[in-house]
Formats: sequence, C-alpha cells, structure tokens
Amino acid sequence: MRTAILGATGLVGRIMLTYLDQMEWVDEEPLLLCSQRSAGYELPFRSKLVTCRNATEVDPTTIQLALFSAGAAASRDYAPRFTAAGAWVVDNSSAFRMEPEVPLVVPEINPALVPALCPSQNSQGGIIANPNCSTIQIALALAPLDQAFGLREVHVTTMQSVSGAGQRGLTELKLQLAGEAPDHPAAEQLFPQQIAHNVLPAIGPALADGSFEEEIKVVRELRKILDLPDLAVTCTATRVPVRIGHCAAVRVVLSRAVKPPEAIKAMQEWPGLVVHADPHAYETPRQVSGRTEVYVGRLRQESRRENVLLFWIVADNLLKGAAWNAVQIAELLVAV
Amino acid sequence: MRTAILGATGLVGRIMLTYLDQMEWVDEEPLLLCSQRSAGYELPFRSKLVTCRNATEVDPTTIQLALFSAGAAASRDYAPRFTAAGAWVVDNSSAFRMEPEVPLVVPEINPALVPALCPSQNSQGGIIANPNCSTIQIALALAPLDQAFGLREVHVTTMQSVSGAGQRGLTELKLQLAGEAPDHPAAEQLFPQQIAHNVLPAIGPALADGSFEEEIKVVRELRKILDLPDLAVTCTATRVPVRIGHCAAVRVVLSRAVKPPEAIKAMQEWPGLVVHADPHAYETPRQVSGRTEVYVGRLRQESRRENVLLFWIVADNLLKGAAWNAVQIAELLVAV
Repeated sequence: MRTAILGATGLVGRIMLTYLDQMEWVDEEPLLLCSQRSAGYELPFRSKLVTCRNATEVDPTTIQLALFSAGAAASRDYAPRFTAAGAWVVDNSSAFRMEPEVPLVVPEINPALVPALCPSQNSQGGIIANPNCSTIQIALALAPLDQAFGLREVHVTTMQSVSGAGQRGLTELKLQLAGEAPDHPAAEQLFPQQIAHNVLPAIGPALADGSFEEEIKVVRELRKILDLPDLAVTCTATRVPVRIGHCAAVRVVLSRAVKPPEAIKAMQEWPGLVVHADPHAYETPRQVSGRTEVYVGRLRQESRRENVLLFWIVADNLLKGAAWNAVQIAELLVAV
Repeated sequence: MRTAILGATGLVGRIMLTYLDQMEWVDEEPLLLCSQRSAGYELPFRSKLVTCRNATEVDPTTIQLALFSAGAAASRDYAPRFTAAGAWVVDNSSAFRMEPEVPLVVPEINPALVPALCPSQNSQGGIIANPNCSTIQIALALAPLDQAFGLREVHVTTMQSVSGAGQRGLTELKLQLAGEAPDHPAAEQLFPQQIAHNVLPAIGPALADGSFEEEIKVVRELRKILDLPDLAVTCTATRVPVRIGHCAAVRVVLSRAVKPPEAIKAMQEWPGLVVHADPHAYETPRQVSGRTEVYVGRLRQESRRENVLLFWIVADNLLKGAAWNAVQIAELLVAV
C-alpha cells in the first residue's frame, strides 16, 4: 500500500509512523506530509530518515491510504482531494465524524463499517473517521454492556490530559510548572487559564446549548458508534494537569438488573478491554501511558438500584485515543 | 471566651488561628495545642508569638471553646475529656460526624442546630462536627435547590486537591514534581500512587461496599446535613495534582421541572454561594484559593429532562471546606 501521514510531525502523527514501521503492508517508505513550516524535517522509519514534505506540493493520485492527524481544517481541505484521487483517508480530526455517510469506527465495536481494500487494484476512495479520544475509551467500555444488558443512560465526567491538545499542550504545562512565563501573551495560550495546579471544566469552543465542544463530541459520537441515536448521554469534560492519559468517571443506567460479576465478565470478554473485578482496583493515567488497551476499574453497583453501575475508565489518549485506533482502522482497510 | 485550637501547627489549625486573630470574642491569646513533637513551636497571634503546648499536658477545665483539627484519632481521644470539663468542641475530623446526637453543621444551611452559649456562664459542653471538605461545598450548592424544588438524586464526581491531605500532601506533590525522590519508602507515602502528573480515584481506606471512605463520607454527610436520610447519592472521589481547591461535577434530579434561570436565582439568593448565570462561566481551583465562598458555574439543564441539572462547584478546601466553616460554627456558638 502506498501510505501517507498528514500531520506527520505532530504528536499523534509521529506515533502513527512508529506503528507503520512494524506493518508488513507498508512496503515502501510512507509519504510524510506536513505544513510548509515543518517541511524538510526528517523522521526515522525502518532505520533510515524520511524527509517530511509540504502537503500542498504532493500529488494525491500516488497515495492509496492516508492517515490524517493535522486538525479539522487541514482534513476539510485535503480529504476531498485525496478521496477524489482514489485514496482512503483515516481521519483523526472531528471534520467528518458526524457526516451520515462517513463511518465512525472503533475496530472492537463496529469493524464491519470498514470496507476491505484490494491493494493491487485501484478502488474508489473514501473517509473513515477516527472518534474523539475520550469517546473511544468510553465507547469501548460501554459496548459490551449495551450488547449484554442494553444501555439506557450514560453520565460521564472526564479528566483529560494536556497531550489531548497536542505538543503545544505538553509544552504549556511544562513551562507553567517550571514557573517560566511563556513567550507569548495569555491570549495566545492554548488553554483558557493556567493548567498547572488547576482543573479547567472547559475543552474546546463554547456552544449555544451551554456545553463546550468536547462534551458534545462525546455525546454525539457515542450515539453514532453504539448505533443508539436516542441514548441519553450527559458529559462534563475537564482538563487536568496530567501529560498523557484520559480518565472518565461513568455512571450507566442499564435496561435490566445486573450483578457486577455479570457486567465484569461481559466486559472482560470484549477485545481491547482490561477490566478489574475488584471494585477498589483501578489504573491511573501514569500506569496506562504507552499501552493500547482501555482499562476499566472501580466497577460497583449503585446501592438500591440493580440496573445502575459506576466505573472508572483510563486509556492512553495518544494511542487507543488516537494513533493506535487509526492504525487499527487502516489494518481493517488493508484486510490484514 | 477561653479558646483553644487542637492541631494548631497543622495546615488547617494555622488558618483557624489567623481567623481567631480578627475575632473580638477571642479576648485573650488562644491556647495552642499540638503533639509532643511540635510542642514549643511559636505561632503569631495579634503581633506576638504564642507557644504551642503538648495537648496531653493541658487542663481542659480552663477552656470554653476548642477548635479541633488534629485528625479523628486525636478527636476521639480529647473531645470526651474537653466536653466533660464543660468545653464546646468544633471538630473538623470525621470522628463524630455521623453520631446521631452530634450536629453536623454548615452555617448557611442548618445554623439552628448550634446552641448559643453565654460566655459569662459555665455551660455543659458538647461537640459540633464540621463536615468533610468536599461535602461542605456540595451541600451548600444543593441546599437552595432542595428548598426550592426538592432533591431526588445527586450524582457527584469530585476532583480534590492534595492539601485535603494536609501539609504532607502538599509536600509530597512538590517533591514529586521536582523529581526528587522522597526520603521515605513508597509504603510510607501519603497517596497510594504518585500524584504528580496523575489522577487517583481513591481517597481514604477501601470499604466493604466497594467505595473508598471519602465517597461514603460525601454520601452520608450530605444526607445528614440536608436532613434527607433517603436521598439517592452516588460519589466518585478523585485526587488531582492541584495544591488548593476542590472541584465537583454534579448532576441532580429534582422533584419538578426547573428552568435554569429559576435554579440560578434560588442559588444566588442563598448566603455563601457565588453562582454564574452563564453556562460557560466557571471558577477553577486556582481562582478560589483564599476565598471563603462556594462557587457554582457551568449550570445547564439535561436535554430532554427538565428536572435534571448539571453544574460545577469549586471552593477552597482549607477555608470553606475546613477552617472557615469551623470558625463560622464557633461564631454561632458565641452568638456573635
């Protein structure tokens, strides 16, 4: 497969490249695409250095499969050109996720939405959307519960790491913790307030319904991935001074009474999940950094309500929340 | 009033002393009591230094009012002796909070539970319990909603700062952020895992019902303070790498449909609360540090459910969550 990464020099793009390094179906060096500013940057691939190229200068007809992680604006710009030239785009941005004709895929939940390509033939191109980082880990924990017991309501509070905002998020936290004033005015900072030693209940732009955009992403994308368009979902999304790893405290109302061991068994049997049976066991962001699984712990029943469960989800937002989920989708496309 | 502070050298005890500094009813220097280890330490009070004394060596018959903030074990030890000698104890620990005969007081909610003493007469002593730090701020936000609309369910996720664990909590975070290994083995650390760059969904000892103790404190104390013994409450309590200020993301089910402006008006009229009408406005831990009010923001209605509200609460856990609430109780006792 002639493969490309758009946004190759970004935090997620670089991780995508390290995964492609190990994939046999990537038979030649991937085309690494970036902004004009980053063009010329060299990244390691199979013990050589590959030079990143300005995306505006590339002919998409040479590409069969592209992983996009350069933000929604770049996706809106490049995806139509790439697909028109016959390429398949796995898009990590929010640009196309809610388009009815675009599959929104977590491979352990809805892999059948991804067509298998034949590398030797030219196919018509298309877009597969990679969900929001928090959405992926929550959806994966909910899928077995929905299948086994039926989901009625989902109420989530997230605690999201600064790497969810990319390399700039990591840098901003680091400089603030070091007590160094950033070299740009406050208005140009990434986060709406200092994130060091703080918690910010605001991720993304403010929307007319009273939410911030991250919250609506979780609500709408969960409904689409789980194919439950009327699911009652609430979300409060917060940013915490953590480098890598998103957390979610979840309360679910199920369609029938469930004993915790039943729920735990259903979740443990689901691919991609690691689930603790002990209600006091849990993972933390530091523990899951570098791992591809989604971790569920602290699972307990609401007292007096046998159809309500509480639990705690943690995953590496750069891996299962972004790069790894996108590479998993790519593997479905190339039918490995 | 002959006043004492037990735990005077602790983080909360020192703040209590700075409040007493300004109180006219504290007519002589307070008796500052501490452990044997801290005895001899000097603290400033009205521009002189007061020497802290070993609590075991003090005759409680000389004390009319004592503020306790030395942990539950010390409270269980000293409170019976102090009250037997005629003193009133405002206890910041969890030792007596759930005793049926002990009032659990947030002065803006249930001040009538505190008897007014006559400083010139010797009265029979007693205990007033100061609630858990997270409980106080949540209870204060809920009280006006319960009074105006009736509370049916409360579902909370807290994000609590390290100062909730006292000076040692602040030191542990600081050393970890500086990359300095603490001079004691991991088993003797305060938090169950590294708290720097992390979130820990576990505060206090593990309990048989699957919760950690902090969660049960919030559940039981909310029911007692609000005088709603059957209120459905769930809580997931987490520790975040923040120095001062606890957050709570709350979802409440009310007994009737409520428009957000109605709820905001009821909360804004309640003493001790600062409430934003804009659903995108909020305070953060850094902003409320040093303030005595409880701040409510991000208030919005659940879509499709007119009797369900979501909101965000932040307060200084050392002030309204501990020292200030205790001093407010003391002021009710001395009938200022």
